Amino acid sequence: MQKVEYIFQDKIVSCFFDADFSVIEKLVPKVATVYLTDENIHQLHSEKFNDKKVIVVPAGEKFKQQSTVDNVIDQLIQLEADRETILIGVGGGVVTDMTGYIASLYMRGIKCCLVPTTILAMVDACIGGKNGVDVGIYKNMVGTVKQPEFLLYDYSFLKTLPTEEWINGFAEIIKHACIKDADLFAELENSSLEEFKISALKMDRLIQRNVQIKYQVVSADPLEQGERRLLNFGHTLGHAIENMYALPHGHAISIGMAAASTISISLNNFSLEERERVLNLLNKYHLPFDLELDIQKVWQIILRDKKRSGKDMKFILLNKIGDGVVFPIPLIQLGNILNELF
Amino acid sequence: MQKVEYIFQDKIVSCFFDADFSVIEKLVPKVATVYLTDENIHQLHSEKFNDKKVIVVPAGEKFKQQSTVDNVIDQLIQLEADRETILIGVGGGVVTDMTGYIASLYMRGIKCCLVPTTILAMVDACIGGKNGVDVGIYKNMVGTVKQPEFLLYDYSFLKTLPTEEWINGFAEIIKHACIKDADLFAELENSSLEEFKISALKMDRLIQRNVQIKYQVVSADPLEQGERRLLNFGHTLGHAIENMYALPHGHAISIGMAAASTISISLNNFSLEERERVLNLLNKYHLPFDLELDIQKVWQIILRDKKRSGKDMKFILLNKIGDGVVFPIPLIQLGNILNELF
Repeated sequence: MQKVEYIFQDKIVSCFFDADFSVIEKLVPKVATVYLTDENIHQLHSEKFNDKKVIVVPAGEKFKQQSTVDNVIDQLIQLEADRETILIGVGGGVVTDMTGYIASLYMRGIKCCLVPTTILAMVDACIGGKNGVDVGIYKNMVGTVKQPEFLLYDYSFLKTLPTEEWINGFAEIIKHACIKDADLFAELENSSLEEFKISALKMDRLIQRNVQIKYQVVSADPLEQGERRLLNFGHTLGHAIENMYALPHGHAISIGMAAASTISISLNNFSLEERERVLNLLNKYHLPFDLELDIQKVWQIILRDKKRSGKDMKFILLNKIGDGVVFPIPLIQLGNILNELF
Repeated sequence: MQKVEYIFQDKIVSCFFDADFSVIEKLVPKVATVYLTDENIHQLHSEKFNDKKVIVVPAGEKFKQQSTVDNVIDQLIQLEADRETILIGVGGGVVTDMTGYIASLYMRGIKCCLVPTTILAMVDACIGGKNGVDVGIYKNMVGTVKQPEFLLYDYSFLKTLPTEEWINGFAEIIKHACIKDADLFAELENSSLEEFKISALKMDRLIQRNVQIKYQVVSADPLEQGERRLLNFGHTLGHAIENMYALPHGHAISIGMAAASTISISLNNFSLEERERVLNLLNKYHLPFDLELDIQKVWQIILRDKKRSGKDMKFILLNKIGDGVVFPIPLIQLGNILNELF
């Protein structure tokens, strides 16, 4: 086990890497804890939840809605959870997002801790404090920003992670490489999903490196005025198509990253060769880069994107691999470009 | 119009007393504003909302629920509200609480401004940043803390305020006098609701004095570890019976204050004579101090009170008039005392 402390504006968050689930009981008083997890994790790792107060939600992004939150809050009331209660979220990004959100609201705020069980949650969703739920098809339309007390990485959860979810996680890892880390990009080119799956050491190093990238971007820009927007690479189009076409998050942002790479050529001197490298890497990690879509309907969703600011969309483009840039594109121009692309 | 600035931990909130509603358009860009109000205010003051984007919710505490919030969020999406949108809540505590709550969540936080239209909202609900909605019969079970950009006091709204609501507001004013201001208590004894109703000057002075009391208590204790708890005088029992018996908030806390005054005699040397003064003042302002209630059911709700902390309830008692005190009472003892009282 390795402990790393990340210093955010209002809080120091401890990360326990390569840790055992049972460590939680040494970190927080058991009597005060309530666990929140989903049906999959609860079934696959039932032994971990013995003798604990557990609230189980249905698995999947489509349940990341206020109705699920309402249900959890009712159960917290039934369990007589009070202001001293610590909510421990165990699951993928859906569970960890809902955990942070509920902990922000319940009795105007209780403590929470996160145990990410997917690669996507480990390298992305859990870091930075952003949380939220979808409103209908609109992703993360309500939410708050709240740092957990700690993050705990127990890699035994990865043993039961479906390949589909490994692929989802690598989409965010490729995103980090594209916007911030050309060396990581090359390392990914020289390796494969299958090699990472069989090497715990390789995965631990990869995860810690990606946590570090996300932390640096987030902490450099707590008010989300600049740098942090880079994390939205592939996400403007990605979010719009994800719920509309019921795509896995990784697939949706992969298609978004491919489109943003193409737009980077016409608007930002990104080279055709580098675009090929991006598409090849996505392909190597079993990610799609194209989709038949109804661009008119998608456009209506993009117009309601949180990243919109008046008449411009703060779009993320690449200067080169490992170097992303925030690029305001007038809505009319962006609409025309997407119309041509799809 | 008089402008007073209140300095909170993370924000300076401007209060515009005796201001005209139209001043809002000088303070914030009209194009960015969306107004939130209830059916009563919208109907009684329709001329104020001409040419504005308005979301209207049903009036009353029973609609202070997540389902109403969900509905408002859907309408914000339809109105294409974005991160630059400023939500302006115009109404009593139900509307201003929901305004702050929704502004905390929508797109992870947008700006809000509050225009309280009831005395209760003017002297209490609007100050301090606390917001929330009820969960079933549990009051303010979810919520956040968020300061508005400004508060605007337009007393023309009081002209249409029903007498019942004047009485509700004076319950909080009497609470402030009981816990913090013996002079105010005496002034209230020497005046009457009817005298305040006919004197705009008297009301303006009374409201500013009460805003000041609430501000001082709140700002002295931002983390709500001590002093601020005094504001819960009458509220532990009050909140439990309010939704259960569909009581007006003022009536509920009036009964709670009467009970807390009685408990103050047995546990805290409060005098019988001062208790008589409290009951007489409540009576003078048309507030009840007794109720036939099912104490077993009420007790079950009190057990889920946010103010519970492990085995103790942080109950508020009086040392003397104008001097409240936080008094932890073991739950078992409190249960027995309430059993005897009711």
